[in-house]
This record gives sequence, structure tokens and C-alpha cells, in this order.
Amino acid sequence: MDIEQANQRAVERMTAARPILTGIGRALDTIPGMREDLLLHAGPPITWERAAGPMRGAIAGALILEGRAGSYDEAAALVESGAIALEPCHHHHAVGPMAGVIAPSMSVYSVENETHGNTAYSNLNEGYGRVLRYGAFSPEVLDRLRWMERTVAPALAAAIEASGGIDLRALLAEALHMGDEGHNRNKAGSLLFMKALAPHIARAAPDGGTAAEILEFLGGNALAVLNPIMAACKAMTEAAHGIEGSTLVTVMARNGTDFGIRVSGLGDAWFTAPVAVPEGLYFPGYAAEDAAGDIGDSTITETAGAGGFAMAGAPAIVTFVSGTPEDAVNTTLEMYEITAAEHSHWTIPQLGFRGTPTGIDIRRVVERGIAPRVNTGIAHRDAGVGQIGAGLVRPPMEMFVAALIAFADRYGI
Amino acid sequence: MDIEQANQRAVERMTAARPILTGIGRALDTIPGMREDLLLHAGPPITWERAAGPMRGAIAGALILEGRAGSYDEAAALVESGAIALEPCHHHHAVGPMAGVIAPSMSVYSVENETHGNTAYSNLNEGYGRVLRYGAFSPEVLDRLRWMERTVAPALAAAIEASGGIDLRALLAEALHMGDEGHNRNKAGSLLFMKALAPHIARAAPDGGTAAEILEFLGGNALAVLNPIMAACKAMTEAAHGIEGSTLVTVMARNGTDFGIRVSGLGDAWFTAPVAVPEGLYFPGYAAEDAAGDIGDSTITETAGAGGFAMAGAPAIVTFVSGTPEDAVNTTLEMYEITAAEHSHWTIPQLGFRGTPTGIDIRRVVERGIAPRVNTGIAHRDAGVGQIGAGLVRPPMEMFVAALIAFADRYGI
Repeated sequence: MDIEQANQRAVERMTAARPILTGIGRALDTIPGMREDLLLHAGPPITWERAAGPMRGAIAGALILEGRAGSYDEAAALVESGAIALEPCHHHHAVGPMAGVIAPSMSVYSVENETHGNTAYSNLNEGYGRVLRYGAFSPEVLDRLRWMERTVAPALAAAIEASGGIDLRALLAEALHMGDEGHNRNKAGSLLFMKALAPHIARAAPDGGTAAEILEFLGGNALAVLNPIMAACKAMTEAAHGIEGSTLVTVMARNGTDFGIRVSGLGDAWFTAPVAVPEGLYFPGYAAEDAAGDIGDSTITETAGAGGFAMAGAPAIVTFVSGTPEDAVNTTLEMYEITAAEHSHWTIPQLGFRGTPTGIDIRRVVERGIAPRVNTGIAHRDAGVGQIGAGLVRPPMEMFVAALIAFADRYGI
Repeated sequence: MDIEQANQRAVERMTAARPILTGIGRALDTIPGMREDLLLHAGPPITWERAAGPMRGAIAGALILEGRAGSYDEAAALVESGAIALEPCHHHHAVGPMAGVIAPSMSVYSVENETHGNTAYSNLNEGYGRVLRYGAFSPEVLDRLRWMERTVAPALAAAIEASGGIDLRALLAEALHMGDEGHNRNKAGSLLFMKALAPHIARAAPDGGTAAEILEFLGGNALAVLNPIMAACKAMTEAAHGIEGSTLVTVMARNGTDFGIRVSGLGDAWFTAPVAVPEGLYFPGYAAEDAAGDIGDSTITETAGAGGFAMAGAPAIVTFVSGTPEDAVNTTLEMYEITAAEHSHWTIPQLGFRGTPTGIDIRRVVERGIAPRVNTGIAHRDAGVGQIGAGLVRPPMEMFVAALIAFADRYGI
């Protein structure tokens, strides 16, 4: 068995995948295997009992939104009773930032990989601060989500359809030349997203005032495109999954309690370990002791060769996640040490248009003792609060070691 | 007389100036000294006889648009007869990219310097390629300008008013962190401009279809914000003009035949010299021998500390103007050698958030033998063709020498 060859095949599939945003639909009607009694969540499998504060808050908020519970305690009882099941987004070709909770009635983006035919899904982005994905579930948080479902989602759906689809690999390629890295910094990408949709929104909205409201919401949210980009990265990494003999990572995800990875040549197995707490910058009034553990599926961006791996092209991000522009360059340079290829479509002008480091090889991670670098938002540890900062974190090394041992077992090396 | 002190005062006024885009009006009603029988143009004063191809083409197109001429030959005769006068935009607190022709009935942006009370003006941007400012005047070029006057200008005017004004110094500060340099690369700035106006356009347009057309036009033009930014730079540099004893350059401008500069402490005098031809990259089918001489008022961006001076923050621009990302960094570093200050609001993440080099000192230019670096579009040498490329150029050193001699004379040094 030629591992190098298998890895090249996997990473070529990852970068050849062309993810097109094709539409928005209700999760229940759109995501394969979605059920009325099911909530999807970020990271590897988790129970209510072991769930972190922000995950619990988001689950409670989602069940209140669905009309299944009237309060946090009712929601908790419902999940503990087993009447509502919890499954990872990743078990359903989906991804969600932070808590990543997707409920049956929520609208989700569909992103189709035109090259290989698979489709991935993500929910809509609510903006910053007190939002469901960071575990906030106060009435204004839920009201915003209801307004998004009522007003934003239908217009966005019509606009995406009228646009004929948006090539998200190309969009991110352009954004990487505009100071984004595609994970924590999506300022340019979100504006490119708005540019692509604004004319169609103006046509699709019932009136000018509604179009204006939607354009204000999109324009005011520099993370608007994060979720479509995450679904694009999921569509790309999934195309690289299941390659016999490949040691490349195709999933990195956290649920606030455990970090989990999956490896292309190791099927559906999760390799997990307790999450770390990110180091970073906090919003006024908050500090490290308030922080929840690392959480969210957004590490799919690093898995696909963007996010922290593309930080060299996004030096201004350090004002948000801490560090210096030199640290940002060094982060990308270090990631070349543990990846199988340089991306054929995503390049970094500052590095002479070198392709981003792509395709994390568990062998290199373990041999060189270098864990991937990840940019991330930081949630408050308690349910109901929300985002309190942003920073940098590395996944626990022990997952990569466990995966490598499993690989040796599986392939009799 | 303390030249250093005068220069510090001048550059502090330049960077303290806060240029706000406040509205759009007809040139005749808006620009001080505008007349029915007057066309404004880029650069220092020029006659029809000495005017370059693209300048002649733009003048002819403007007179056809105004209904004063039916053809290029009629327009030429009209200007040669003296029935239509030509004056620099800069004599009227205005700036225009490339030929920079502003006719009495054209719509112009007003940018008010909130700090010192002066106002500057620029025309609307038509997009790329076959456009009036590059000397094209075919029926489709004039039709686009008519559509812009009829459809875009009224909605933009209403949107700008509804927005309460746009702070262009802040907009450019943000764009400089998104890979723009504010002259040839305004991708991010144009999207930020669209973001600020899109909701108001949706409300102000007569219907959704018209709003969509305008948003498509704005979104499709990565130079949409160039003209407002040029007016902002004019408002800022004009605030630094007229400081007794200052050797700082407050105007750099080209008309396709002559390059001209003005100096803060030397009143209204122009120091001119024949323009060079830019070196750069050409659109398919064109080459250096097709190029017109350097043209346009857009060098006001470099005069204010952006454009070529901020290239270190815009490494992706080299795909458009030639060179490598290292060249872009070196261009900015070199400009610190000839400038009086580092900008207090415009910073470059790649250089550790150092302020852009600002305030060209004619003494340093001459002493060090370093002429300013300028990014620019390249026009075809013949009237009627349009843009054929983009590149880099330096102003002729002899202007700076002549200005320094005049300064020594004037101040008895």
C-alpha cells in the first residue's frame, strides 16, 4: 500500500472539488436523515450530561424555537428523557459554527460539489455577540432567529436561485487576496457574498424596505459567509474521505467538551480527546476564566486548507485573535510542515502566491510534534451568555496519536 | 523660518482632515467657478493643440454628451475656436481620474473636510475598458454615461443623503487592511462603499428592478469608490496647502502631455515636465507602443499617502500592475525616504501596522534622488480606444528640482 499515493489522491479530490452554493431549504426537508425529534450539533457525539454550557444553551434555545420546550429546564428534561436525540452535524454531511445546533425547522444552505456530486449543509449566520451558536437563548436572540426565518431566508433562497449558484471556492480564493483567512476573518468574503446576492435580493424582496433590512443585516455581519464557506469546506473534505490507505484528516470538530477528528482511510471512526481553552483576546468585561472549551465545526476550514492555515494572508486578524502579523505568517509556514500539498486554487499573495497548506497528514503531525493551528471564537462557559472573545488554539495531540495507532492496526503496518 | 515645523503643520492638517462624502449634484450647480462654456480636465493646464489622444477623445465625448458637438471634428473645432474653455480640475477643488473631464451637466460627488471646512469634488466612475476617462467616446460609452446620469446618479444622491454621509478616511483605512491601496486596487473599498449604500439604494430606487440594476453596476465595478476617494484625498491635501515655508507636495497630476506638481508653500504655481509612459501589464492585443503618456489626477492618492505609497498592504495588485509582492513592499519602504510623516489613520498590517508614508517633501526627493512611485491605469495613445493596461510610473525628477529652486528663491534661502 502506498500511503503517499493515497494521500495525493485524497488531497487532489479535496482541491478539485468545486463547491457551489445552490439553495436554501428547511433542514427537515433538506438534510439527509434529519428527523422531527433530532437536533444536530457541532463536534463528535455528545450527551446532555457531558455537554458544555454554550452547547446546552443552544440546544435549549433551539427547542424553545421549535415550540418543543418553554424554558431551559423543560428543554433539558426533554433531551435527558430521550424524546429528543442529539447527533453530530458531521453524521449528516452538515457543519455548524460554535454549538452548531441545527433544528428540523431551521433554514440551511445546500452546497453541491459539482466535481464529485456530494452535497454539504450549514445553517444561517446570526452575527456576533449574543447569538444562539454561542449558547445565548434570550427572547431577543430567538426573535432575531424568527425574523431571519420569516424575512431573510425566503429572500436569500430566491436570490441564490436567481444567481444561478455561487462558486464558493472561487469566492474564498478572491477573499484570501483581500485579507481574509475564511474562518474568523470573513470581512471581504461576506462583502463578495453580498455583492453576488444584492441585486437578486432587491428583485426578490417583497418591497424596498424589506430589501433594505436584509441588505443591512448581511452588510452588518462580517461573518455572513462563514456558514456557506464551512459547508463548502465540508463538501471538499468529504470528497477526500474514504480513500483506502490515506492518512489525511477529513474532519476536525469540537463540541465544547471533546475535540474529534476523522481520517480519510479510517472510515467513520472518531478519535477524540478533551478540548483545550483557546488563548486570545476578550471583549471588555470578560477574561480567560469565563471561557468555555473549544467548540464548533468551523475547524472544517483549517481541514480544507483555509482558516488558521491561511493566516499569512490575513495579517489584520491579529487585532481580533491576538499576536502579531509575523505570528500570522509563521502560523501558515508551520502548517506546511504537516500537510500533504499546497492548494491549487487558494493562494497567499504575501508568500509569492504560494498555495495554502492543505491536507493534514496524521503521520507528520505525530512525527514532527506539530498540532494544527486553529483560529476560533470564544464562548462564555455558561449557557445563555454568548461570545466573549476570539483566539487561537491547537487540537490535542493525543487524537492524532490514537488515529495513527488505529491506522497501523487497520492496515497491518 | 523653520521648514520642518511648517511641514509637520502641513502633514498634520492633511491627516487630521476628515473627508465625508455628503452628496451628489450637477457640476454646474456644485463646483465653484463651473460655467456652461467650460470643461475641466486632469493635470496641469493644457491646450487642445498639445492635448494627448485620450484627453482629446474625452473632451470630444463630453461635448457630444453636452449636445455642443455632433462629432469629434465639431468638438475639436469648438475647443480650438475658444468657444469652450479648458481648465484643470485642480483649479476648482476637483479631481478626475485619467482624462478627468468634467462637463457642466455631469453629476459630481461632494466631499467635505469636516475638520477644516473645505470641500472637494469628483465625477462618477464608469467602470473599466472602453470608458470616457480613457478617451473612448463611442455611442455605447455615451449611452452608459447617459444611463448613469438618468438612473444611477439620482439613486446614489438619495442614498448618500439617507446614509448621513460616508467617512472616506475611515473607509480607506478599512480597505487598506483588506488588500487595497486605494488607487488601482479599490476592490474592498468599492464593496465597503456598496455595503454602506445598498440598503439606502434599495429604499431610494423607484422599484426593485432599478435597485438591482444599480447594485449590479456598483458591485461590478471594483473602481466604484476610486472617485470619492480621490475627492477625499483632494480635500485632505488641500487642507495642507498654503502653509508658509512648507516644502510638501499638495498636488501631483498629469494631463497626458505634462506632469505637474504644486507645493504647499509655493501658492498656485505649477511645476511641470513632460510625462513618462508607465511600465506595466497590457490587456490582450495591446503593447507598450500603444500606450499614451501618464495621465490623470488619481496621483492625488499618492499625494495623500495612499496608492503606490500603500502598496505593501496590497500584494495582490502585482497581478494587475506587474512586479512581485516583494516589489510592493519595497515600494512602500522606499517612500518613507521622501515623506514627512507616517499616516495617523492609514496603516499597513504587513508592516506591523506602521502608518503609510505621507507628505512628499521636495527636499528629500531631490536630495535622495528618489521620485515618488505611482500606480496607474494605461490609456491607448489614440483618441477613442480606452484602457489597455495598468502599471507603475515615476514623475519626472526635474519638476521637483524646479520647485526646490523656486522655493529657495521665494524664501531667500
